[in-house]
Amino acid sequence: MCQLLGMNCNVPTDICFSFAGFRARGGLTDHHRDGWGIAFFEGAGARVFLDPSPSADSPVAELVKHYPIRSLNVIAHIRKATQGEVRLENTHPFQRELWGRYWIFAHNGNLKNFAPTLTGRFLPVGTTDSELAFCYLLDRLAQRFPQGTRDIAELHAELRVLAIEIGSHGEFNFLLSDGDQLFAHCSSRLCYIVRKAPFPVAHLADEDLTVDFNEVTTPLDRVAVIATTPLTDNERWTQIVPGNLLAFRDGEPVALRDTSTVAQDYPRGTVTNA
Amino acid sequence: MCQLLGMNCNVPTDICFSFAGFRARGGLTDHHRDGWGIAFFEGAGARVFLDPSPSADSPVAELVKHYPIRSLNVIAHIRKATQGEVRLENTHPFQRELWGRYWIFAHNGNLKNFAPTLTGRFLPVGTTDSELAFCYLLDRLAQRFPQGTRDIAELHAELRVLAIEIGSHGEFNFLLSDGDQLFAHCSSRLCYIVRKAPFPVAHLADEDLTVDFNEVTTPLDRVAVIATTPLTDNERWTQIVPGNLLAFRDGEPVALRDTSTVAQDYPRGTVTNA
Repeated sequence: MCQLLGMNCNVPTDICFSFAGFRARGGLTDHHRDGWGIAFFEGAGARVFLDPSPSADSPVAELVKHYPIRSLNVIAHIRKATQGEVRLENTHPFQRELWGRYWIFAHNGNLKNFAPTLTGRFLPVGTTDSELAFCYLLDRLAQRFPQGTRDIAELHAELRVLAIEIGSHGEFNFLLSDGDQLFAHCSSRLCYIVRKAPFPVAHLADEDLTVDFNEVTTPLDRVAVIATTPLTDNERWTQIVPGNLLAFRDGEPVALRDTSTVAQDYPRGTVTNA
Repeated sequence: MCQLLGMNCNVPTDICFSFAGFRARGGLTDHHRDGWGIAFFEGAGARVFLDPSPSADSPVAELVKHYPIRSLNVIAHIRKATQGEVRLENTHPFQRELWGRYWIFAHNGNLKNFAPTLTGRFLPVGTTDSELAFCYLLDRLAQRFPQGTRDIAELHAELRVLAIEIGSHGEFNFLLSDGDQLFAHCSSRLCYIVRKAPFPVAHLADEDLTVDFNEVTTPLDRVAVIATTPLTDNERWTQIVPGNLLAFRDGEPVALRDTSTVAQDYPRGTVTNA
């Protein structure tokens, strides 16, 4: 099983703290050694760092850990290969352009007997079920909105239909962003936290690292962090109810028809990365 | 004026030596301080490192210089902005997917009154003439070959037509690769060198750095390096005749209808980066 990490903020924020703990899951505190990647939106542009080697040993991960790229939307992924060899082209997140915007996608799960018909406009380069699902999503969005849309409710409604359809083939937790908003779909396991003033002193679950966010933020900052399992062991994370698709914008979930969630306390010290 | 660097090889090769000299042109030995980028194909996958800050100061460039990514096709670019602000989305090289392959493109020049009609399949994210030209190229390739093609002669013939058409709007030196082959179009200034056994001892023009390629290669290796101006001051580079499009594969130009070139000696010590 792979690990997902997303961040959506109202001001450009660096992800160094969360990434430090997340990265440890790529071969150090967990067994996801089949590559990793992280994508940062900066304005309309996107930077994608991919490495088919384990994140715990990766010089690229070392750079990302220490180089504070500030971004409104970030998607990261550590891979445990299920379908597709360990190769660069099978490394998440994946990127495509639609409607003059970059779209970034990462998936956790395993889709079986998933062989959708594609128009050819978006085709997978690698051999994963994940990239195929991404191409199918974009293909369908392109057909549904030939002139494009940036309307979060319209996109959410269509993506929800697609998530149900694709999710019928298996586990389909995913993060998707066009740089404006970040969609998080939970089919089995995905949680989030919204950090805002008064900011907490957070302690990582995977590394003995603590940060007092009051020292690095302003009172107006708001940051949502989405992850497969909680990254800190002293904060209250919200489990997304399986079957739900959340849309994050400006550092919080947007109230849309399908946003039911249930808060769940993760007891200190019992966080797992299984 | 921007700087282009390309590499095409018959075995995966690192570009650390050439990149060391090329990078110096981004703010150190030359005035191209408006960002830089480099893309490496590895199998069907591609890694693109982009940085809108000067390459001479960039921590990402520092990583690339010391982390030997081995690749058959590399395209790098240092930007001197003509059209489009200095922003990540305007930083070359650009990437798109067509026919289930990634395509990478970088441009040196300036296109005026270039406003092609696009189908919408490929749209620019940023505001450069370069990305617009790339989208137009792919749009036309997609129309010309609806089922796709990997035939180098077919691609070359179509790209040549497009290069002439787009080049009528201004300077249009470009590098383009789909991971199999690398196309290099010279509209004003582009040169290349093919290194093979017996390998030379090469000395950079932009930094006092020498490498004996015999120590890091096997007798069967063949590497073509393409650059705006020669990167070394003790080798014989071949100037591509303006108006010509070369296709490189397995580390050398492929003999196609339009490959006329003229060798030109660059005297030692008189290499310019203007």
